[in-house]
Amino acid sequence: MVNVGIIGGSGYTGVELARILCNHPQVNITVATSRQFVGLPLASVFPNLKNLVDITFEDASPKELCQKADFFFTAVPHKTAMDIVPELLSSGKKVVDLSADFRLQDITTYEEWYQPHTSPHLINEAVYGLPEIYRESISKSDLVANPGCYPTSIILGLAPLLKAGAIDITSIIADSKSGTTGAGRSASVGTLFCEVHDGFRPYKVGRSHRHTPEIEQELSSLASEKVILTFTPHLLPIARGILSTVYGTLKPGFNQSVITSLYEEMYSSEPFIRLLDDDIFPATQYVRGSNFCDISFKIDAATNRIIVMTAIDNVVKGAAGQAVQNMNLMCGFSEATGLDIVPLFP
Amino acid sequence: MVNVGIIGGSGYTGVELARILCNHPQVNITVATSRQFVGLPLASVFPNLKNLVDITFEDASPKELCQKADFFFTAVPHKTAMDIVPELLSSGKKVVDLSADFRLQDITTYEEWYQPHTSPHLINEAVYGLPEIYRESISKSDLVANPGCYPTSIILGLAPLLKAGAIDITSIIADSKSGTTGAGRSASVGTLFCEVHDGFRPYKVGRSHRHTPEIEQELSSLASEKVILTFTPHLLPIARGILSTVYGTLKPGFNQSVITSLYEEMYSSEPFIRLLDDDIFPATQYVRGSNFCDISFKIDAATNRIIVMTAIDNVVKGAAGQAVQNMNLMCGFSEATGLDIVPLFP
Amino acid sequence: MVNVGIIGGSGYTGVELARILCNHPQVNITVATSRQFVGLPLASVFPNLKNLVDITFEDASPKELCQKADFFFTAVPHKTAMDIVPELLSSGKKVVDLSADFRLQDITTYEEWYQPHTSPHLINEAVYGLPEIYRESISKSDLVANPGCYPTSIILGLAPLLKAGAIDITSIIADSKSGTTGAGRSASVGTLFCEVHDGFRPYKVGRSHRHTPEIEQELSSLASEKVILTFTPHLLPIARGILSTVYGTLKPGFNQSVITSLYEEMYSSEPFIRLLDDDIFPATQYVRGSNFCDISFKIDAATNRIIVMTAIDNVVKGAAGQAVQNMNLMCGFSEATGLDIVPLFP
Amino acid sequence: MVNVGIIGGSGYTGVELARILCNHPQVNITVATSRQFVGLPLASVFPNLKNLVDITFEDASPKELCQKADFFFTAVPHKTAMDIVPELLSSGKKVVDLSADFRLQDITTYEEWYQPHTSPHLINEAVYGLPEIYRESISKSDLVANPGCYPTSIILGLAPLLKAGAIDITSIIADSKSGTTGAGRSASVGTLFCEVHDGFRPYKVGRSHRHTPEIEQELSSLASEKVILTFTPHLLPIARGILSTVYGTLKPGFNQSVITSLYEEMYSSEPFIRLLDDDIFPATQYVRGSNFCDISFKIDAATNRIIVMTAIDNVVKGAAGQAVQNMNLMCGFSEATGLDIVPLFP
Repeated sequence: MVNVGIIGGSGYTGVELARILCNHPQVNITVATSRQFVGLPLASVFPNLKNLVDITFEDASPKELCQKADFFFTAVPHKTAMDIVPELLSSGKKVVDLSADFRLQDITTYEEWYQPHTSPHLINEAVYGLPEIYRESISKSDLVANPGCYPTSIILGLAPLLKAGAIDITSIIADSKSGTTGAGRSASVGTLFCEVHDGFRPYKVGRSHRHTPEIEQELSSLASEKVILTFTPHLLPIARGILSTVYGTLKPGFNQSVITSLYEEMYSSEPFIRLLDDDIFPATQYVRGSNFCDISFKIDAATNRIIVMTAIDNVVKGAAGQAVQNMNLMCGFSEATGLDIVPLFP
Repeated sequence: MVNVGIIGGSGYTGVELARILCNHPQVNITVATSRQFVGLPLASVFPNLKNLVDITFEDASPKELCQKADFFFTAVPHKTAMDIVPELLSSGKKVVDLSADFRLQDITTYEEWYQPHTSPHLINEAVYGLPEIYRESISKSDLVANPGCYPTSIILGLAPLLKAGAIDITSIIADSKSGTTGAGRSASVGTLFCEVHDGFRPYKVGRSHRHTPEIEQELSSLASEKVILTFTPHLLPIARGILSTVYGTLKPGFNQSVITSLYEEMYSSEPFIRLLDDDIFPATQYVRGSNFCDISFKIDAATNRIIVMTAIDNVVKGAAGQAVQNMNLMCGFSEATGLDIVPLFP
Repeated sequence: MVNVGIIGGSGYTGVELARILCNHPQVNITVATSRQFVGLPLASVFPNLKNLVDITFEDASPKELCQKADFFFTAVPHKTAMDIVPELLSSGKKVVDLSADFRLQDITTYEEWYQPHTSPHLINEAVYGLPEIYRESISKSDLVANPGCYPTSIILGLAPLLKAGAIDITSIIADSKSGTTGAGRSASVGTLFCEVHDGFRPYKVGRSHRHTPEIEQELSSLASEKVILTFTPHLLPIARGILSTVYGTLKPGFNQSVITSLYEEMYSSEPFIRLLDDDIFPATQYVRGSNFCDISFKIDAATNRIIVMTAIDNVVKGAAGQAVQNMNLMCGFSEATGLDIVPLFP
Repeated sequence: MVNVGIIGGSGYTGVELARILCNHPQVNITVATSRQFVGLPLASVFPNLKNLVDITFEDASPKELCQKADFFFTAVPHKTAMDIVPELLSSGKKVVDLSADFRLQDITTYEEWYQPHTSPHLINEAVYGLPEIYRESISKSDLVANPGCYPTSIILGLAPLLKAGAIDITSIIADSKSGTTGAGRSASVGTLFCEVHDGFRPYKVGRSHRHTPEIEQELSSLASEKVILTFTPHLLPIARGILSTVYGTLKPGFNQSVITSLYEEMYSSEPFIRLLDDDIFPATQYVRGSNFCDISFKIDAATNRIIVMTAIDNVVKGAAGQAVQNMNLMCGFSEATGLDIVPLFP
């Protein structure tokens, strides 16, 4: 059993960590922090947790936190994370950070898209927490940078193709659609029910979403070449789910059966990747609440393009679930422990 | 371990039984039937189950079914159930029937609201499967009539009041609102997305919904007096959930603290009833996907009425989850086995 | 042509007034105010109005406003309204006030539910703006208090019954369900998409919603007797629409045909009341975007209760549309001018 | 005044034609057909039309229909349309056909994607009903082939670019997302509320959607060169709206200001095209219920791609509204008559 703390527990990622961890057989949630809700039981802020989680939000310093748990999830905004994580690590704790602060290996890139980095020395220590690619390193790490939701959906979709050099790396377009949990739980007019419901829109079009450099870092690493892509996020009138439709131009020799093999080779033993049959396409409603990433592809022969489609629950495989998967690896537990949640359909 | 069969597995109750049972530590799902989808894997009809349930829909006779499992859930329409259940029982199997066929103890009432009953001899053998009221009898029974979704939400809400004689039994009005899963998975114009979405309506108003006699049977039993109520169902543009707002006029002597005691006495040890704090009201989104029934009440002093509010997931506590709860009791398992599903919010 | 000003134009009522008025053949919108959005075109705050409304939000004093228009809609919060309205009236302008400030005839009741009233002398001048009941007085008035959304739906449903003394006035229960526009456009966690979507809940249960005294004032006036009711509001995961299900116990002699006559007598010539056929029940989706109030009733013979159901679009007949209907009367225009909007279905 | 018939009035396009036409000042709806609902008033099949449309569905032969109206909208499935239209035309009637039967100029292409064509002689007489491109010809035509919904959204978005040769025509990818009205009103499991709600998915991926050849025909015509594109439709959990995100690689010399000019030149006088400001992107909720097509574009300098985004209401500009726009042209009415419907937001 490991004592676990959730730092920044009052957002949708926080409540989701609590949902998953409260049923995890090798975890005790011993502390959760929230400045806004200090003194309130988690179960009163999130009534779904009533009778299931019995702790109360605290506003503790990193030092105090270190007395209360041995493993931490930092689910705070970027910038805040880099201020807290160093002290946790130096006290010998392990951390999965769900912010962007330790995802980008290139500090210049980080500072260009975010702000000055106050813990640059930790960047190289951090492992990018995509188990399907970095399982080994994650297992040995004390600091894992949990991937962003869009990056998870796009990188997992393209990895087999890029590793094999199957597509023209200048041709990549990722048209992604996300549920509204991705926008967080802060009060704002733009995410009010009446603004989002029964509607659909793109946002941050044309290289302005901060997940862009993260996606490009990992695609470049897979391709062993610098990848620049076009990435367009959209806001869906659903709570959970990301569906990415990713386009690329095939290189000669990569046909249906070769590509099927590439995906099977990389993913057929993965516990949380489900490769769909030909002409079956993923849908967010079939992964809802689960840690699965459903993947399929279709070749458009007339244009020589491949269309890769992936679906994840952005709060689970795109955040809290993947964080627990990483924790399992870091703690030596079986990777799927506590994550055997069946997708809720309908 | 018990081998379990799902008869009528292609509706929303069927897929939900599969969702719950595939994670149940003492169950193997060995057979599932569907005429419409015979030969297809469950996971291709319900892609959320991919990699989790590996059986294929069959169209087997009761005799063949008896070779394959020892415990059955009949999730078929009324009328069909009464044709299948007798043979299962006479082969020594145990059955939770999710249709209406064995819920009404009075055969005349059944035949008035449904059709002629072909297995009247089984009616007295069947136990009404509301564990909070009939736990003992359920444990000893081979045939449990799983309650309807509306009745579950209304009976659980009123039980403490009726047992104590706290309300005028002629004053009961149940205004209930149900998610659209309650209408089933058959193709019909009325439940198309575009007809239900962004809308709300009552239906079967004024003593025309078939759950009426079932509710009255159980309320009467609790009150030890014949209860007639007004029950108005409404269709919500959500997938899962029933919220019942139930009104009754208080009898003298029943104030806030007395009534609080009545609810605590009856429910404080129940694993799936959550009594909410004063002025906290239930919401369907906080029980989504779980077997909980959340309950609270408010006294309207000016009119001397009590307003009891309950929320359940109609597919879980209102159908498949309660059925598994009954199975656990019938099989001698711990009552909550396999039902430790945390509500999915948001 | 009349020059019209919208004071408080940045909420959902404001944008809806603009939607309706920009097509009104006898109106020019000459000014709209918003502190938050001063300097911004209405069409940039509400992109649906692009190319249709070309004015810009101002933050003008009542004196300045009086230079710009002759008729005003005050769509500001209560308390703010009573500070602005007197100056408009004393400058000879006509006003439809959409706040609660002039709805309650009894100042003690107002101050009990809201706060001290700073313009008590105007209360008696104000006419309650329900044209189906107060058409004559509205036509002659300079200040109309536009009804609340819940009150509109409940009063219109009960009026024929109360005028005829058809129901026991101690038996009235109104179970109402409202779309989320009713909660306004301010940023708040409780009305975020992810909190409301795919869920349903009651709120302000048991005589705590401020529409209660307004409903009771009008029901009492219709019944010529003091009416106390139980009123339970609920929040629907839809943008627009209120569906009220109202219960009352019938007095002897009031049967189906008598009651049908009562409704027809009162409403058959009304331009915005649609009486539905027997066993057809209203639905919010059939009045969406329009000024209609759809009404039907059903008698539950077993309990001697009548169930009256009404559906309105809370932003139209429950706010902006009714306000324009009142303006038409006050200005001597044909009552339905500019309100011939066909409900948008689906 | 023109007497108008709606042939095939029981689908979502039919009810929408009735919604628009019943307020059209120069139209009488004199007949509407439906086999399924023959004998029923339109207003009982579509209760939103109550008190607004007073005709009853008929099942009349083309000959009988010709007695009743002078202008027809054929809102029947393809194949059925080509069987009816010839007789209407030969009786001297004018027709806007909303099926696919007269959209494709190349009969071989038509027969490859649909079935044998029984009225090939009419194909050349038919004008493709996109007024922004074919206004002149539409005005002179007796048979207009109303465009498909996806094609409308994609062609309008790309037209200025293709006419100017601004993009590499081999680079076009259209990632489109449609509301569920696009799937029609037939009972089917796939479009049930519980299957679509709170979910999102692609379908007919990779050159399998029948709108592909229609889009390519018009893009090719604009480019004066054969265009092949990749087109991916997706199903949104909303009732109305198409949002197309269209990608293309810019040719040298086409920068922000040049492209802005191209759009302004082509569209600034168009009554139903709204060009959005820089960095404002379209959203389906801002065109809901209206005939507008909102357009914006963004240049992704890093990849030299342009991202064009368009939003329409698929039932209006994508079907019934555009059909009425065409009717107005064909009848010599002002083009926007009856189409001054303000988008309904929220």
